[in-house]
Amino acid sequence: MAYERDNIRQMQGYKSGEQPENADTVKLNTNENPWPPAPAVGEAIRHFDAGQLRRYPQPTADRFRRLAADLHQVHPENIIATRGGDELLRLVITTFVDPYQPIGMTEPTYSLYPVLAQIQDCPVVKVPLGDEWSLPDDFAHRMNKAGVKLSLLVNPHAPSGSLLGMEAIRKLARDIDSVLLIDEAYVDFVDPDVAYDSASLVEEFDNLIVLRTLSKGYSLAGLRFGYGIGAESLIRPMLEKTRDSYNLDAISQRIAEAALEHRDHAAWSWKQVRTERERLRSALTALGLTVPESQANFLLATVYKAGPSANDLYEYLKEHGVLVRYFDQPGLADKLRITVGTPEDNEQLITHLQRALAPG
Amino acid sequence: MAYERDNIRQMQGYKSGEQPENADTVKLNTNENPWPPAPAVGEAIRHFDAGQLRRYPQPTADRFRRLAADLHQVHPENIIATRGGDELLRLVITTFVDPYQPIGMTEPTYSLYPVLAQIQDCPVVKVPLGDEWSLPDDFAHRMNKAGVKLSLLVNPHAPSGSLLGMEAIRKLARDIDSVLLIDEAYVDFVDPDVAYDSASLVEEFDNLIVLRTLSKGYSLAGLRFGYGIGAESLIRPMLEKTRDSYNLDAISQRIAEAALEHRDHAAWSWKQVRTERERLRSALTALGLTVPESQANFLLATVYKAGPSANDLYEYLKEHGVLVRYFDQPGLADKLRITVGTPEDNEQLITHLQRALAPG
Repeated sequence: MAYERDNIRQMQGYKSGEQPENADTVKLNTNENPWPPAPAVGEAIRHFDAGQLRRYPQPTADRFRRLAADLHQVHPENIIATRGGDELLRLVITTFVDPYQPIGMTEPTYSLYPVLAQIQDCPVVKVPLGDEWSLPDDFAHRMNKAGVKLSLLVNPHAPSGSLLGMEAIRKLARDIDSVLLIDEAYVDFVDPDVAYDSASLVEEFDNLIVLRTLSKGYSLAGLRFGYGIGAESLIRPMLEKTRDSYNLDAISQRIAEAALEHRDHAAWSWKQVRTERERLRSALTALGLTVPESQANFLLATVYKAGPSANDLYEYLKEHGVLVRYFDQPGLADKLRITVGTPEDNEQLITHLQRALAPG
Repeated sequence: MAYERDNIRQMQGYKSGEQPENADTVKLNTNENPWPPAPAVGEAIRHFDAGQLRRYPQPTADRFRRLAADLHQVHPENIIATRGGDELLRLVITTFVDPYQPIGMTEPTYSLYPVLAQIQDCPVVKVPLGDEWSLPDDFAHRMNKAGVKLSLLVNPHAPSGSLLGMEAIRKLARDIDSVLLIDEAYVDFVDPDVAYDSASLVEEFDNLIVLRTLSKGYSLAGLRFGYGIGAESLIRPMLEKTRDSYNLDAISQRIAEAALEHRDHAAWSWKQVRTERERLRSALTALGLTVPESQANFLLATVYKAGPSANDLYEYLKEHGVLVRYFDQPGLADKLRITVGTPEDNEQLITHLQRALAPG
């Protein structure tokens, strides 16, 4: 007998990017930072006293929350620490959206969002993006009209890397009459000249939650540590009620603290990624692919119509030990999402692409 | 404006036991193992390569699942690894219980259960335990009659430490017509003579899930690692659909593997706890408290009616640096739950109790 709820039985789970066992694979498929985490992270691990693991961890990661609050110039009450951004996404749904109430998002977007909506048995309202991945001007209006309780926007956008500016976020927070989450998984790679700092808006709006993660910017995808920034009235019910009582273990708290305390190392990696991003974009463009500017650590490249298909290129690269991401979805089937790697990674990608695209 | 769902607004969050900052406190309030984890745990931490944290972890903790499957003589498909037992409890509710459908449990029980039910907006069906914390014979019948979709039983029972035997579990799994979760957070402390092994029942019943945790038995409360054992048809939807995509970080997977691989160390601690449990029980009884046998790593002591109240004793002990647990609840208000500590911890408890109970 099957005991699953109907909505669970009917849904498909989230498919994460391939994680090859082979360490030689050039892995440009899951937007991981190509540089290792700060040396202080290794120190924190080596000096961790295993004996303290017999006791429960500090339940709310308060030391981390203080560090994050200082970084964003908000109060610790404006911060919730979570197991990666994923836990925060689940918590906002659990806390603010009743089953059967709609959740709004763009199309395309981070493919986990509709999966989480289905788990809560919530319909999804999808607004297609316009040319060059622009958000339609009437997005807020459409969210309100559909009665959504939560809007999820990834910014910089995935999979395109385009960025909504501060004023656009401010306008959305003002115009949307329910909770708005801005998922800033890739924000650390934004060019500093853009002066983007949406966290500063949480004191202005009681419906805005900003999601941050250490996965990409701090080279800690394997750690599962993120946080949310928002008005205390939004943070408190997640912190005190809906969060698993001890959601963050003692070691990961210590590591996350070390990463934030040694942010200069992470900032160095962001700079490297930005430099490589431009170099890679030029090289891909020279090969005939169309590659818009990106503010994230990946590029979304449209393949040349007369040449091999995106799927063929994906397969060719995989055969030659280079993994990129291919989405068999409307609007994306002629594109490849390519994570910016080290100069050596990118060089290998380019070499293999040159061969694949060379006139036969 | 408050954006919380009504059920979240109305509920109280789970209150975890006090975690004093003072390392000198004799901490007998949260059922932590008084002995440190296996030396192999420290080794696993020291030898962990921080560089690998930049990549996502293995999503389903497959190596751990294989080790746990070997231990329980089931298949890896019968195992899901989770962040402590708490995540498994949340997942069974998310996966098998629609909002507004009832969840069954005993009274008293682990105080987290009703909190998790409220988060899913599920009513709770509570069946009071009988004399000496016995489960009423008609428990299964009452679950079925109330239409519960999930029954949660902690065994050994918390906060009493009493144990339902294998035959009772078998009968419950057979008679209850929905999912039955047996929460074995404390099972490692059961006397081996009892020959209790409910995991062996999961191949017999497609509605039985057994919860295990490394928190108590393996001295790893700070790690947040547990697992579920059940029929593949119960495990799969949680593993592939409702679980956060990367619920377990790379370091905790490595540590949990080391703990299971060096189970002999943990087993040594279980033996110590059992010996101390009996010694402590005798000493408390000699002081006039009523203390039933316990198969867990704690004792539930009823205070002497003519003496100080349980709450007064709790406060007295706390003032003197000894933390125990007091529940201000019907049926428990004249009792203290005392975790079995090291011989030195227990000695300090007894000394202070003697003074508190000495004729004034």
